[in-house]
Amino acid sequence: MDRKNNNNNNNNKNNNNNKNNNKNNKNDDTNNKVNSLINLINRAKKGTFYGEKLKNVNISEINKIEDIQKLPFTTKAELRNAYPLGLCAVDDEEIVRIHSTSGTTGEPVIIPYTKEDVEVFTEMMSRCYKVAGVNNKDRVHITPGYGLWTAGIGFQLGAEKMGAMTIPMGPGNTEKQLKMMMDLKSTVLTSTSSYALLLAEEIHKRGISNKIHLRKGIIGSERWSEKMRNRIEKELGIETYDIYGLTEVYGPGIAIDCDEHDGLHYWDDYLLFEIIDPITGDVLPDGTIGELVITTLVKEGAPLIRYRTGDLTQIMTGKCKCGVEYPKIARILGRSDDRIKIKGVNIFPQQIEKVIEGLDELCSEYQVVLTKCDGRDNMLLRAELKKNVSLDSESLLNLENEVQKKFKNFIGIKIDVECVNSGELPRSEKKSKRIMDNRL
Amino acid sequence: MDRKNNNNNNNNKNNNNNKNNNKNNKNDDTNNKVNSLINLINRAKKGTFYGEKLKNVNISEINKIEDIQKLPFTTKAELRNAYPLGLCAVDDEEIVRIHSTSGTTGEPVIIPYTKEDVEVFTEMMSRCYKVAGVNNKDRVHITPGYGLWTAGIGFQLGAEKMGAMTIPMGPGNTEKQLKMMMDLKSTVLTSTSSYALLLAEEIHKRGISNKIHLRKGIIGSERWSEKMRNRIEKELGIETYDIYGLTEVYGPGIAIDCDEHDGLHYWDDYLLFEIIDPITGDVLPDGTIGELVITTLVKEGAPLIRYRTGDLTQIMTGKCKCGVEYPKIARILGRSDDRIKIKGVNIFPQQIEKVIEGLDELCSEYQVVLTKCDGRDNMLLRAELKKNVSLDSESLLNLENEVQKKFKNFIGIKIDVECVNSGELPRSEKKSKRIMDNRL
Repeated sequence: MDRKNNNNNNNNKNNNNNKNNNKNNKNDDTNNKVNSLINLINRAKKGTFYGEKLKNVNISEINKIEDIQKLPFTTKAELRNAYPLGLCAVDDEEIVRIHSTSGTTGEPVIIPYTKEDVEVFTEMMSRCYKVAGVNNKDRVHITPGYGLWTAGIGFQLGAEKMGAMTIPMGPGNTEKQLKMMMDLKSTVLTSTSSYALLLAEEIHKRGISNKIHLRKGIIGSERWSEKMRNRIEKELGIETYDIYGLTEVYGPGIAIDCDEHDGLHYWDDYLLFEIIDPITGDVLPDGTIGELVITTLVKEGAPLIRYRTGDLTQIMTGKCKCGVEYPKIARILGRSDDRIKIKGVNIFPQQIEKVIEGLDELCSEYQVVLTKCDGRDNMLLRAELKKNVSLDSESLLNLENEVQKKFKNFIGIKIDVECVNSGELPRSEKKSKRIMDNRL
Repeated sequence: MDRKNNNNNNNNKNNNNNKNNNKNNKNDDTNNKVNSLINLINRAKKGTFYGEKLKNVNISEINKIEDIQKLPFTTKAELRNAYPLGLCAVDDEEIVRIHSTSGTTGEPVIIPYTKEDVEVFTEMMSRCYKVAGVNNKDRVHITPGYGLWTAGIGFQLGAEKMGAMTIPMGPGNTEKQLKMMMDLKSTVLTSTSSYALLLAEEIHKRGISNKIHLRKGIIGSERWSEKMRNRIEKELGIETYDIYGLTEVYGPGIAIDCDEHDGLHYWDDYLLFEIIDPITGDVLPDGTIGELVITTLVKEGAPLIRYRTGDLTQIMTGKCKCGVEYPKIARILGRSDDRIKIKGVNIFPQQIEKVIEGLDELCSEYQVVLTKCDGRDNMLLRAELKKNVSLDSESLLNLENEVQKKFKNFIGIKIDVECVNSGELPRSEKKSKRIMDNRL
């Protein structure tokens, strides 16, 4: 993290004696990026995947950064078709590691890493910890998975590089997690939001809050509502930082929010971000919401050019008050493919969350069950009451009617609503599945 | 692996142009060791654990390597009592990672690592791969666990350092293991002997041997018989290397056998090995079997002085034909505490294995069930028939009588014997539990 300023141990947040302070630096930066892009294309073409895909690309036509728009997008379906090692763009001997997506929705995508790729990944994760104000006195409790997953080892090596003590738990076994958290006095939790919530609830249930020393949470891998975030922060007594990433592009840690909690800084020396209209593919100006497209400027093992992430966000304009000069994207708003189409209307999960947020009796947890009856779509929203909220049957009915009304007003369709008691909806040690589409 | 010669990619096995060729070098080496030992004691005394334990040790009395015998032994029970972080001998800020024993037989032992400790661990694992003839063209399939365990990340980082491609599977999910092994053409298997056997049997059962590309196996973490080793080698078509280590002392990789398969080389620049009489504690001369005691010469986070491993072996004399000049210990013969005392007689598992090895109809798998009836010990040995061996009831009875007779002759007690069909005894993805002591 030498090139730009960040909220590190010295806390010199507002020290601006580095890049982007004058136009020359900006020009250098742009020239560097164009050179990186040209190098990337040349490297990528050595592999089977881009060798074929970019065979008609003439490198002499790439003279400015906008020329990237002459290159085709890369999709997840294409990466799947390259299984197992079609993405590899270097000699086999240079690969030191593979990671893989889960492959739950198709053939897994396998990403090969060179030593340099591992180092870049580690450096990005290390920056994330620094931006989140984690330091070498912290004890980082790591709950994501190891092995084929990127997250566990990414969180670990990044924290080790930064000098914190890692407590490498991996997923599951909440009993042991809590014991280690207490005995080793973990100060930073890294997890999915679902698991952070589960841990918070268990800690509350057992009355052991006073034995927990957490002060920060680095939470990622699924979109989480503001209501859920507030709950995790309150119940665990921590400040949380939203971390973003995907296996196809190193793993988690390509962006993270800072103390301002107003957008996520990303590492533009390693990654080039574009925002496109998910329908037309047109590049959108900064400040406009669209689909995030990533180009990996320095990746060797499996370089990606204009990879369509499916994640909806925007590039934020203006400087961040925290002093970190890396640019920012907004928190991920959803995925272009996670909309629910019901009764001819497109609904995104964050719209459902907005409705729930407006009701004091409800906590952050919900479930949507979609069914089809006599050719018509039905949607049942099951929402969970807050802890200590207990309603008689009349009040419950009133609340359900209120949710139904708000939903109709805000989204425009009539749904069924069922409010259930605190803790009744399933919790997850990994990511929560909230939408059950039983319509076939 | 620069200081000494090894069977590396250049295959210059017998090149002797390094240390120990003349007396001066030997003296330097000994002086270095004494200095390392003195530094170690001084460092260790900064922590609570050895600060207390060695408070009466006068460093001026340590002048030659044999003076180590003036220091007390360290036992596993003491390490357990130091839970959680009592072993730490450096400032908290210097610790970047902890690992832990399973704690199945008591409080777990937690070992803190500094950056330098992680590097030494990685270097030792990297040397192991080189001694086993693994090179940067290999694809190393890693089945041990990650997280709190040392093995997974140790095998991974060592292979990455050496330049091979790692396939970080972690334990379990045999279906996926085999898919990845075939699709990614894994060439080196790292696992316990139990899991190697389970994989071999599954591969055979599915008839997919021709799609498996394994050429070597690095196998460790439990003692395995010669019969089991031969079976794994034959069924997987690989050469196996026995790797040794323990969580308390870095993890696996502190010793490994070479192409000669006659003892395990250990890294005497990092570790000082002594062999003692497990009863009297007297140091035994090289070539004598006893309990291995380890002193970690360079460890920072949790240095260990004269740690009693409980493992029985001997330091081998003479040079190894493979050309690697690091000294050797014999394969682990057993543990000083894994003897079974029955009817007043001490039995070690390897004695049981010796009986089984002599019978062509039996494979390597067995189980011992101990019970007490009317105050008398009973031992039932359940031994498994080889694949394709099927016996009528008379032949089966004859075989059982033969095992019983051999056992009586060799070990001196009468036991019950039951021979079961191939595949009937449980298999394990981790370590096999072969002794069931139900005597209370």
